Amino acid sequence: MTEFELIERFFTRPRVDAIVGNGDDCAVIAPAAGHAFAVTTDSLIEGRHFLPTIDPLKLGRRAVNVNLSDLAAMGAAPRYALLSLTLPQIDEHWISRFSDGLWSALDEHSVELIGGNTTRGPLAIAITAFGELPQGAALVRSGARPDDELWVSGALGDAGWALYCMIGDIKAEASAAQIAKYETPQARVAVGIALRGVASSCIDVSDGLLSEAAHIARASAVTVEIDFAAIPTGLAGMLQTGQHAAKARHCLLSTGDAYELLFTAPRDKHDQVLGLLREHRLDGACIGRVLEQRQGEPVRVLDAQLQKMDIKISGWDHFA
Amino acid sequence: MTEFELIERFFTRPRVDAIVGNGDDCAVIAPAAGHAFAVTTDSLIEGRHFLPTIDPLKLGRRAVNVNLSDLAAMGAAPRYALLSLTLPQIDEHWISRFSDGLWSALDEHSVELIGGNTTRGPLAIAITAFGELPQGAALVRSGARPDDELWVSGALGDAGWALYCMIGDIKAEASAAQIAKYETPQARVAVGIALRGVASSCIDVSDGLLSEAAHIARASAVTVEIDFAAIPTGLAGMLQTGQHAAKARHCLLSTGDAYELLFTAPRDKHDQVLGLLREHRLDGACIGRVLEQRQGEPVRVLDAQLQKMDIKISGWDHFA
Repeated sequence: MTEFELIERFFTRPRVDAIVGNGDDCAVIAPAAGHAFAVTTDSLIEGRHFLPTIDPLKLGRRAVNVNLSDLAAMGAAPRYALLSLTLPQIDEHWISRFSDGLWSALDEHSVELIGGNTTRGPLAIAITAFGELPQGAALVRSGARPDDELWVSGALGDAGWALYCMIGDIKAEASAAQIAKYETPQARVAVGIALRGVASSCIDVSDGLLSEAAHIARASAVTVEIDFAAIPTGLAGMLQTGQHAAKARHCLLSTGDAYELLFTAPRDKHDQVLGLLREHRLDGACIGRVLEQRQGEPVRVLDAQLQKMDIKISGWDHFA
Repeated sequence: MTEFELIERFFTRPRVDAIVGNGDDCAVIAPAAGHAFAVTTDSLIEGRHFLPTIDPLKLGRRAVNVNLSDLAAMGAAPRYALLSLTLPQIDEHWISRFSDGLWSALDEHSVELIGGNTTRGPLAIAITAFGELPQGAALVRSGARPDDELWVSGALGDAGWALYCMIGDIKAEASAAQIAKYETPQARVAVGIALRGVASSCIDVSDGLLSEAAHIARASAVTVEIDFAAIPTGLAGMLQTGQHAAKARHCLLSTGDAYELLFTAPRDKHDQVLGLLREHRLDGACIGRVLEQRQGEPVRVLDAQLQKMDIKISGWDHFA
């Protein structure tokens, strides 16, 4: 199979909405009147962003969702995607399953694949995703204001826990649900759109709660205060005691791959936010608040006794 | 240096035109009223798209230009870019030079870098480029009509020749000019824009003349006839005789990396096309014509005696 046959067979469908679709030098697209595009690109490299053992169907879904998660964090509605696929060889079974996973995630969000390229090399997937949003409606990191509340759209820590168990850093079995959270995260697209005009700032938890909170704090020139006990997590039973307590705490605060939305909203929108989380069947919660900026302290975490916990902010760093 | 410091130091500048620039989950951009975006993504993998010995300054320029070349082929004016950079390690000298090359090419075309990501892995560069063009003005592959003339914007074959010499497939010395054509191609942006409303179809020669001509032929349901002797090239002296004649011919017809524009235009625009090529100081030429579609013969090449040459269409295939 040649490169062109591969693209034709697994990654091409008729044009839907694009002005010029797949198959020319460029795709041509335009947002609706009064709208803009939110654009993002994320790469998934074997051994860094997924384990070699992952089912390619899940990898296809994961590659789409980690990109749509960035669109969700801006409140953008997914529209288009470009795919750059680097493959060590043509393995038709693998590509077919990967392509099935990719399309299933694209179809779920009505995303049109408008182009890309394939090449030979170490397995890597880069997707550029395009979302649409009314001009001026983007949820940015810099809008948090003192007295806002801090929210998360769902449970944290489980995906990181699953990864640590799978690579043997934690000697325990991850549950199937935890592994699914790691392998096939679900971008919070609908709730991101619903948060337009409600949230004052927003980011997705790809790298870890503390580092994401610090991004909001720095961009907004505020301090973010988190109530540790309020963070929704499937790891609650392990946090206080037992041999894995420290690792569970680390997973909750500092591991990524959760792809939940972390956002702030004015206090008077508390019931509205709670309502829309429930409407989208998400177990998100209010987990803290925004304070006036404290020098050298972008993020602080309080324990159940409202005492400041001794934590170090660290997110995922590909070069650490 | 952390990933964030690396991005901050080498790949970040203040926002210019984007609604939301570098540093949030997404960039937010919108085309001018009545305009659309042309979008394309291309990956450069070490050992496939460039030799490990390439000066990173040149690599940075090359990565930008191969993407802008796709914009040029649509007649789009470059506006924005996203960069996905995969690095085996943080080598500050290397990254600094790569970044200098990248910015020099971006600046030359007033392109704003609006985001991207870095990760650790085998060296690879993926760029997504955004160009702007009036709605309906895109130069597509499917517009060639019988009796149109076929044009190329500049010399072909030299870049492929240089690569073959550098990897030892041809036992000869490539000239500095030929090596420069291979390492730092120049996207034909200005002429692409000038061809709006003039060319009936357009593509860039990234993979080889014959395969690009076949793309136009298939998309337009025509046959493309090429006059071999009319193709501008620096290899003319080697084509007829000598030990390298067959390889030189292959370079001219089937090797890529030229990044010239191959386009068709109505016969009555001959002088206009010639004028705009000269205005842009390009040594392009009319190299053939468009015929009614001949079944099973998308492309035919005539020799200086107007006899059909026995050639096989093959372009670069990453999996061949």
